[in-house]
Amino acid sequence: MSDEHTNGTGRGRLVEHADLVAFGTAALVAAGARRPDAELSAEVLAAADLAGVDSHGFARLRRYVDGLMAGTISGTAEPEVVQEHGSVAVVDAHNGLGQPALRAAVDHGVRLAKDLGCAAVAVRRSNHIGIAGWYAERAARSGVLALVTTNATPQVAPTGAAAPMFGTNPISYAVPAPDGPLVFDAATSLVPRGKLERLHREGRPMREGWAMGADGRYTTDIPALVAGLKARAGHALVPLGGLGTDFGGHKGSGLGLLVELLCGPLAGASWSRNTYGPDGADLGQFVLCLDLAAFGDPDGIIARVGALGAEITALPPGDADVPVRLPGQRRTACTAERTASGVPLLPAVVADLDRIAEQTGVRPLRPRTDVVV
Amino acid sequence: MSDEHTNGTGRGRLVEHADLVAFGTAALVAAGARRPDAELSAEVLAAADLAGVDSHGFARLRRYVDGLMAGTISGTAEPEVVQEHGSVAVVDAHNGLGQPALRAAVDHGVRLAKDLGCAAVAVRRSNHIGIAGWYAERAARSGVLALVTTNATPQVAPTGAAAPMFGTNPISYAVPAPDGPLVFDAATSLVPRGKLERLHREGRPMREGWAMGADGRYTTDIPALVAGLKARAGHALVPLGGLGTDFGGHKGSGLGLLVELLCGPLAGASWSRNTYGPDGADLGQFVLCLDLAAFGDPDGIIARVGALGAEITALPPGDADVPVRLPGQRRTACTAERTASGVPLLPAVVADLDRIAEQTGVRPLRPRTDVVV
Repeated sequence: MSDEHTNGTGRGRLVEHADLVAFGTAALVAAGARRPDAELSAEVLAAADLAGVDSHGFARLRRYVDGLMAGTISGTAEPEVVQEHGSVAVVDAHNGLGQPALRAAVDHGVRLAKDLGCAAVAVRRSNHIGIAGWYAERAARSGVLALVTTNATPQVAPTGAAAPMFGTNPISYAVPAPDGPLVFDAATSLVPRGKLERLHREGRPMREGWAMGADGRYTTDIPALVAGLKARAGHALVPLGGLGTDFGGHKGSGLGLLVELLCGPLAGASWSRNTYGPDGADLGQFVLCLDLAAFGDPDGIIARVGALGAEITALPPGDADVPVRLPGQRRTACTAERTASGVPLLPAVVADLDRIAEQTGVRPLRPRTDVVV
Repeated sequence: MSDEHTNGTGRGRLVEHADLVAFGTAALVAAGARRPDAELSAEVLAAADLAGVDSHGFARLRRYVDGLMAGTISGTAEPEVVQEHGSVAVVDAHNGLGQPALRAAVDHGVRLAKDLGCAAVAVRRSNHIGIAGWYAERAARSGVLALVTTNATPQVAPTGAAAPMFGTNPISYAVPAPDGPLVFDAATSLVPRGKLERLHREGRPMREGWAMGADGRYTTDIPALVAGLKARAGHALVPLGGLGTDFGGHKGSGLGLLVELLCGPLAGASWSRNTYGPDGADLGQFVLCLDLAAFGDPDGIIARVGALGAEITALPPGDADVPVRLPGQRRTACTAERTASGVPLLPAVVADLDRIAEQTGVRPLRPRTDVVV
């Protein structure tokens, strides 16, 4: 989302999910993407808005459209398996949209795992993929425990350092469970940048302990942070566990490094600090699929996953404000609610999408009803 | 380590690494273990003392000896591959020592990965395995990127809950690098219980934010915590990220759950909350091996791992007290130093080992030189 819009005070809009996908598809096609790739990318972005992860939804469409129109993302590339050995494959995205490349990798990984029990697929020369959980959940619906990661633009300082190096590097996993997949999806940074941008827009304060200034200390100066992160001016997000080692920051930092290792050196892509060069983003992704049936009776494993989950949610609560939930439960509830009632878009996003409509000649996204959200 | 010893104020001892391994081997054999298993278990425990991870070293020998002598751990069991499909295998440890079972799983995983590129091996009916990093490093020396996890006795409260459910559930990974494997090994709890026990012994205070009382709030009452954790009386460690969600506790909690899923339901072992029942610990472990050669030229990948590491350690420092290090660097340095100068044992550990010598009829561990450590 560009700066001009982040302080927009216009009216928000409630839209139908199907309209959102149709609008995104049309805009991406107009910008140069093949229709099936445009549809998939719009669907993955809309899934984030549906699930309440607004930072990874249509707020990002601008970057896709701009990238396609400028030619820094290829609209015609087709992901290609460039290496395969047993239960491992490497996909070259050829600098196309990230969604079709990663979906192809996941589907290939599921096929390999169904055959061989365990499979790993890496993607190189890729782009932004939306929410990693979408892919892990897709794989889990085929009966595998899946792990999906991606690297990203550098924003997180490794423990002890005063400069951004790692991406927010999410780790997502999903496992078949009795009531549908259990899906975990979280950045290895303490908070995502989107959370700071949202507080910035809303003029609300941030907690100390989420991000650091160029001096290597915590800061709560949101405007300086948001500008500094954008300009790579020494500001950085901190790893899960915070600065230093007293609260385990070295653990979050090491998990961020694991994602870099899998998605960078192993995949043959750039690592976060060297992404978005003159030849494209060159992001990397990594997918692991474990077929439940290779480990035992899949129904029995799924029943045990259900029993483990039930034991967790039956634990005595320690804080009235923090429900004991399984990963993904809040997102699933939000998805159901917004599928029924519509997806609320923030004023800044509405303004940006209207501008994209104008720019691409696509009919603007019509409101389900006008509301301020 | 038993309670009687944790406040011991006797004299510490500096011992030779080889003497430590020989003593542990003799004690475990005397307690009923087969010699090769005893040697391996002693070697893995000593590796922790060498690396400075004292909480996972010979301070644990007491539990192994007691378990073998009481018959709650089998000294004669042989790990067995009970299921194999393609690149997946499941090992039944038959309630033997954890070290031989997990080493067999790792070596099997490496063989499968060399053949098929990617392999996963799970272990069920297992016991304590020492430091997970030992196994990941062993695998990485064969040219694979390895991930190793284990569950453990319940000590960590999931986000929102006021009772222990997860083990400290370490995640370890190792990857070949130009100067030897880069090894990460960290609990998914914010701190390990051993850290609290050590502060307790030394009469030093703890930081707020590491553990909670039965009321679901942070506590710094170390004696009550140490006793409560042991008695499972509602006290608990907190996940990486702390209590609640403001500092990402739900992320650490979700990573602890991932370890439970892999080592419990998928492996066919108990999950942490149900471990150590009448039929043995029934711990589970999980190993993933990715052969670098399946993803590209292994030398090229290792060179890129080296380049990524060099970029990290060259970052500007943000805190004079926190060096910018790669995972494992401190442990490697400690191992080199203690291999040369001897392994310092705490007074409580010395007292415990002397008692084990008496109990098993094994010659006591001789000091390299007498020092108070």
